[in-house]
Amino acid sequence: MGSRLYPIDNIFIEGINEVIVSTCYNAAPMGIILKNNSLSMIVFRTSHTAENIIRDGWIVAHITHDPVLFVRTTFEDLSSESYVEEKIGEYHIQRLRSVQNWILCKAQILNKTSEKIFVGLEPVHIALTPEPPHPVHRGFNNVIEATVHATRYILYQDMKLAELIRHHGDLVMRCGGESEKRAMKLLYTFVNSKNPGTFFE
Amino acid sequence: MGSRLYPIDNIFIEGINEVIVSTCYNAAPMGIILKNNSLSMIVFRTSHTAENIIRDGWIVAHITHDPVLFVRTTFEDLSSESYVEEKIGEYHIQRLRSVQNWILCKAQILNKTSEKIFVGLEPVHIALTPEPPHPVHRGFNNVIEATVHATRYILYQDMKLAELIRHHGDLVMRCGGESEKRAMKLLYTFVNSKNPGTFFE
Repeated sequence: MGSRLYPIDNIFIEGINEVIVSTCYNAAPMGIILKNNSLSMIVFRTSHTAENIIRDGWIVAHITHDPVLFVRTTFEDLSSESYVEEKIGEYHIQRLRSVQNWILCKAQILNKTSEKIFVGLEPVHIALTPEPPHPVHRGFNNVIEATVHATRYILYQDMKLAELIRHHGDLVMRCGGESEKRAMKLLYTFVNSKNPGTFFE
Repeated sequence: MGSRLYPIDNIFIEGINEVIVSTCYNAAPMGIILKNNSLSMIVFRTSHTAENIIRDGWIVAHITHDPVLFVRTTFEDLSSESYVEEKIGEYHIQRLRSVQNWILCKAQILNKTSEKIFVGLEPVHIALTPEPPHPVHRGFNNVIEATVHATRYILYQDMKLAELIRHHGDLVMRCGGESEKRAMKLLYTFVNSKNPGTFFE
């Protein structure tokens, strides 16, 4: 397992980078922003992630292309066995057992509104294994799009969002492999269970 | 530059993999299908790609996440200076100068219909440099979605497609970095030039 300190713009790309962020026994997909060579993220104050960051001052950003893990961490809590506990310097962290590529970041609140915290991130430990580059995969990408829309659909039941979820779901079934299709079916199950009025299949 | 023969399922992912395919002084984004540990692609018979494959029996699949290159190779012909000529075994190839990760494949026609050829691919030379894994980037992914819809929109002028292009374009502007935004503006320019009736900005 590599632990070299890469320049951050060799890892993150300018704009928003979707990773799975763990804090104290908690994991959720989040966007990390790379802008002017700085990393940051915006977190809703009501979330467990915000609560944990304020108390503990760290996050672990996991780089993964596992579609099922993105869907699961969006809609459910992982079991405590899903995490590895580790002490790194002054940090006592919990990271995801199934993801080999991760970056521990010091997380500092830079700004607050009534709804959100604006968090500055600074990598303190990088565990990334170089691998051959992978081609673009629309099956996987459309799982991500569908997942983002599904989180909003559950809150607002907007039919335009339902239509987008179906659009992306159809593309996943056409362009995806078995894991993308499994992830999409799981997403439909979660959405159906929270919105008895709609039915995706 | 590495040239090891990776197992193909370490590079390609089950389902459709979007790469930029070069044949004789020609380049276009195409989907390579990995299924049952075999690589294949489906090509319209009227395309230059099909013509070149039938005559020459090879393609080079370029793995890249350069959004501008995806848009340019979709809508225009690259200059001959964009290619490197190289002799590899019995093959005299043209590959893209700006992409360092590529795979030369023997390309054999397995089946034909009146409209399409079904092409079996077999890697014969792999030039991939391992790199740290990159997070999911919705800015880039939405350039790809918009590009696919734009190719169909130019043919059919379906307003549903125009709406999808705008939807993805808005996401690119929100989640993308400078290159994704530049790619999206270039895409709008191409679409506008071919459909004077519509105007994207």
